[in-house]
Amino acid sequence: MPSFLEKLKSACHTSKSLLCVGLDPDPSLMPVSDVLQFNRAIVDATRDLVSAYKPNLAFYEALGFEGLHALYSTIEHIRVTAPGVIILGDGKRGDIASTNKGYAKALFEFWGFDAATVNPYAGGESLEPFLDYEDRGIFIWCRSSNPGAKEFQDLALSTPGTSMLLFQRVALQAAQWNSRRNVGLVVGATYLEELKWVRSACPGMPILIPGLGAQGGELEKAVAFGIEKDGHHALFNASRQVLYASREKHNFAQGARRVAQELCKRINGVLEAEGRGW
Amino acid sequence: MPSFLEKLKSACHTSKSLLCVGLDPDPSLMPVSDVLQFNRAIVDATRDLVSAYKPNLAFYEALGFEGLHALYSTIEHIRVTAPGVIILGDGKRGDIASTNKGYAKALFEFWGFDAATVNPYAGGESLEPFLDYEDRGIFIWCRSSNPGAKEFQDLALSTPGTSMLLFQRVALQAAQWNSRRNVGLVVGATYLEELKWVRSACPGMPILIPGLGAQGGELEKAVAFGIEKDGHHALFNASRQVLYASREKHNFAQGARRVAQELCKRINGVLEAEGRGW
Repeated sequence: MPSFLEKLKSACHTSKSLLCVGLDPDPSLMPVSDVLQFNRAIVDATRDLVSAYKPNLAFYEALGFEGLHALYSTIEHIRVTAPGVIILGDGKRGDIASTNKGYAKALFEFWGFDAATVNPYAGGESLEPFLDYEDRGIFIWCRSSNPGAKEFQDLALSTPGTSMLLFQRVALQAAQWNSRRNVGLVVGATYLEELKWVRSACPGMPILIPGLGAQGGELEKAVAFGIEKDGHHALFNASRQVLYASREKHNFAQGARRVAQELCKRINGVLEAEGRGW
Repeated sequence: MPSFLEKLKSACHTSKSLLCVGLDPDPSLMPVSDVLQFNRAIVDATRDLVSAYKPNLAFYEALGFEGLHALYSTIEHIRVTAPGVIILGDGKRGDIASTNKGYAKALFEFWGFDAATVNPYAGGESLEPFLDYEDRGIFIWCRSSNPGAKEFQDLALSTPGTSMLLFQRVALQAAQWNSRRNVGLVVGATYLEELKWVRSACPGMPILIPGLGAQGGELEKAVAFGIEKDGHHALFNASRQVLYASREKHNFAQGARRVAQELCKRINGVLEAEGRGW
């Protein structure tokens, strides 16, 4: 069974892309009302341009059983039409270990995600049930992309002999949890210096970088700071910017493709400038 | 519309109980295979002894659509047979605000929970979509009950002029978010000193206290430390200890009732000793 890092590498090389498209269907923005129809059209229009799709579970849960069934069928559609593409379940789950066992089963067996985001608040001991899935990617929510991220994540710790912020400690602990080489990190593109720090502190670990586009992350810098010399190990996620590029029923898929192409090209432009092209 | 604190008070006074039973169906422990049948039997056997039920979403998600449908029907059953009892959705959700909007909608509209647990890692700004539901209870995961809780939650912060740990800062920030009087905290019964600290730092805020029984929390001390003089403002949760008291098909519900009765009696014993009886 290939490791998650191998699957990720293969997905990126096949599409020559580090772009991840967030599949976050929002009925108030979608030009068609059916979630599955919307997602299928987005996937069909972008699948050669991405290395990963990232459905955020909140958007499906908000729609009840209908939303969850649409997610299930969306995953099936991706598996059939884009079998090499990573599907990353973004749910930021986190509880005590006996409960995380249930979440891990849901994410990796019921939904069958290749990777998932998790919340580190209860510590590494609590995350063992996720980490036990050796062939899946476990992305630890380290630095969130929102304006209020610093309320806790930038708290300075009184570690003797060193000054460190909470998100930095989370990143270093996550590196300790990586004995099975299946741990990654989530760091928002909206916090470039923080991204640069995490990249250099956690070599070899993949970083999921959300917050391009709608959230205002600076793409070129995020790419330069997020990739590393030894393998790319980074996924750049755009959601609303791609999904709702056009909100017209007749051309929303083409609109998504156009923006995905443009993002892919800009990311690859930075890779080439950094001597890390395909 | 009654506030969450009013609903909680009414639920506790009606049952003369601060007991919350965690509805965490685990097929490897259940004496019957059908989740709804199991939950209905547990509810029917305990509903006069509890102020709240707390389904943890992980246990249902692990079972896929079947589990989620069983949860839906369990909620319907509680609403019909125990209309005054609080239903607390334990999902520890937390993401950026635009995503939390979806989670809040799922928890408070689709599932219709009276209260929910949330994760504070992205800060108060991210939690606004939950807090906007003024008549629901938002329980902030402050101190988890697991052995590894201290990895992050006990990190000492270098706040000038004061020494404070991360979970203490979370508790104090949560008190700041409580302008609508709908914020509570989660503090494990397995950490008695921490519970004592939070209780005294956050007067008037309800505390959900999991980890009795199977997790080894000391009940009498947890009750003495968790309640407050001005109103009880505490819910003591037991899950496995109640649900799996008997694992025989013919008497598991009676077993659950017996343990729930015993827990309720022990909790009330402490309340009386503290001059806070019903």
